[in-house]
Amino acid sequence: MKKIMNDPENFVDEGLKGILRAYPDQLTSHPGDLRAIMRVPQDPDKVSIVTGGGYGHVPLFLGYVGDGLCDGAAVGNVFTTPSNNTILKVMELLPGQKGILCIFGNYTGDRINFEMAASQLRESGVRCEQVVVTDDVMSAPNRFKADRRCIAGIVLVYKIAGACARRGDSLDEILAMLKRVNGSMGSIGVALTSCHIPTTKDPIFQIAEDEMELGMGIHGEPGVRRTKIATSKEIAKFMTEAVAGDLGLVRGERTVLLLNGMSAMPKDELFILYGNIRDCLDERGILVERSFAGEYVTALEMSGASLTLLRYEDEYAPLLDAGASSPFVFFNQK
Amino acid sequence: MKKIMNDPENFVDEGLKGILRAYPDQLTSHPGDLRAIMRVPQDPDKVSIVTGGGYGHVPLFLGYVGDGLCDGAAVGNVFTTPSNNTILKVMELLPGQKGILCIFGNYTGDRINFEMAASQLRESGVRCEQVVVTDDVMSAPNRFKADRRCIAGIVLVYKIAGACARRGDSLDEILAMLKRVNGSMGSIGVALTSCHIPTTKDPIFQIAEDEMELGMGIHGEPGVRRTKIATSKEIAKFMTEAVAGDLGLVRGERTVLLLNGMSAMPKDELFILYGNIRDCLDERGILVERSFAGEYVTALEMSGASLTLLRYEDEYAPLLDAGASSPFVFFNQK
Repeated sequence: MKKIMNDPENFVDEGLKGILRAYPDQLTSHPGDLRAIMRVPQDPDKVSIVTGGGYGHVPLFLGYVGDGLCDGAAVGNVFTTPSNNTILKVMELLPGQKGILCIFGNYTGDRINFEMAASQLRESGVRCEQVVVTDDVMSAPNRFKADRRCIAGIVLVYKIAGACARRGDSLDEILAMLKRVNGSMGSIGVALTSCHIPTTKDPIFQIAEDEMELGMGIHGEPGVRRTKIATSKEIAKFMTEAVAGDLGLVRGERTVLLLNGMSAMPKDELFILYGNIRDCLDERGILVERSFAGEYVTALEMSGASLTLLRYEDEYAPLLDAGASSPFVFFNQK
Repeated sequence: MKKIMNDPENFVDEGLKGILRAYPDQLTSHPGDLRAIMRVPQDPDKVSIVTGGGYGHVPLFLGYVGDGLCDGAAVGNVFTTPSNNTILKVMELLPGQKGILCIFGNYTGDRINFEMAASQLRESGVRCEQVVVTDDVMSAPNRFKADRRCIAGIVLVYKIAGACARRGDSLDEILAMLKRVNGSMGSIGVALTSCHIPTTKDPIFQIAEDEMELGMGIHGEPGVRRTKIATSKEIAKFMTEAVAGDLGLVRGERTVLLLNGMSAMPKDELFILYGNIRDCLDERGILVERSFAGEYVTALEMSGASLTLLRYEDEYAPLLDAGASSPFVFFNQK
């Protein structure tokens, strides 16, 4: 295990302290809970957006606390759900007049703890709703979409949610928008290398020097196939067919594309894959109205990539084109 | 070697094609040379800034072609200087009325090819000057500063140069400013893992599972010491002492800090190191006026980090605080 760290038990808290020290004018934490992260300043005139999940995926989750994105994030141990107390602390410190919307990935622990925190919050009269992201097409068949895991599609949900909230949409309007978004997108991930949780001796999975895993989740959940490393063109074809096929995209349809590179995937390499994916979409006659490529979701030092496609609607344009930024990610104003 | 690619011989060109396909409204290439990258649109009313170097370091070099940064970049093969023809093509297509400033790292090939291109350009009557960045304190002793290699300090040079050019400074003014900046900063890098040039069979260097290299360059140039992996606190102390010592920083002095994480270094981990470096600076009574942390310079999939310190001057503030962005990096307006 090669990591720059001190005591593995303090990995998360020391990371958070460093982040808070680096961005004191943009991020703060609850005075009683370092893992309850909030944006500075808050805006009481809009719906507050809360996210959260395990540490080890930065920029996900806390890296999306920023202008035009989320307002707070609850952080758990590495690859572990945050506690319901931490989630509640984030919610309690955010303005609740217009309601609070929680956006998180479809993992059992997160569902339980977010729901527990939401129930407690509702007792104080604040309205709290949730959107559970289920974009990984390889994690369950299309007819069981609600069972699917979350991978980088959550980034498009954040972007659209943040822009909706900032323009003054109501909680009901944002909820309806995000349910449509989540229902019309799909993602697939591939991994080339494994990663190490700081407190454990072995990597989270073993993979040979000439192998890759297709369909892998962001915590090392097994994919659909282990294979020899394929060419970028072959990988692009597999990813495009999997997602476009699942969404039933036909010739002439318009999409939003997000290509995510995980940590050890050099950008120099990611854009080879990007070009090959665009070629595959061209061949199928599928149009790309907006595209994003970069490091949006990681799994510690794991190397890999994921493709997300969202069926495009005209009303997404102003939401995707609105400028947004956090200390970790940015979306240029178009 | 684990890479998502097709023919290794086409690694650079396929990567560039993907990048240009992703950002058609921000980047373009010379019609006769894919590796001559320019910003869209150009601004004839300011000094044009050109950079360049080998591929494999994205976001360096072409990733700094953007608003408030550089105007063009020449791209070479992986870890290889761009050809003088490519450099000249970038220069020729950029507005030259206010002069052209080249910013590049102190590597022999780059020096030769940039100077050759500049000589050719000057024949057409365009003024062309250069700043060669020499920030790596471990690559030559302080008394031979001009011999030092370049690592992530070049990012601060870009940021300041781009802001100077945008506010209308003359070529002479920018040159004077950048020479002061380059003369008052230092950097040090550490590496945990090696990386693979796509066309070669072996990694660029061997390093054991429990070792790290202190003082390493961004092409795998040997550092000053190979050691067992130290704690983040120990690494922070080593890095801080090396750079602060070289600059002769004393208690009460003010600095600009840039912490660069290379590719496979998770952000989750980078900020542990960031916090420890801030603690080391606190102990020495060295103040941090501005700080930047993220992935600014990489070496393919190599894992590692570098610390840059620049002796702060008040006149840097508006230049560092001006918003700037490219498809790959952003600096929030302050």
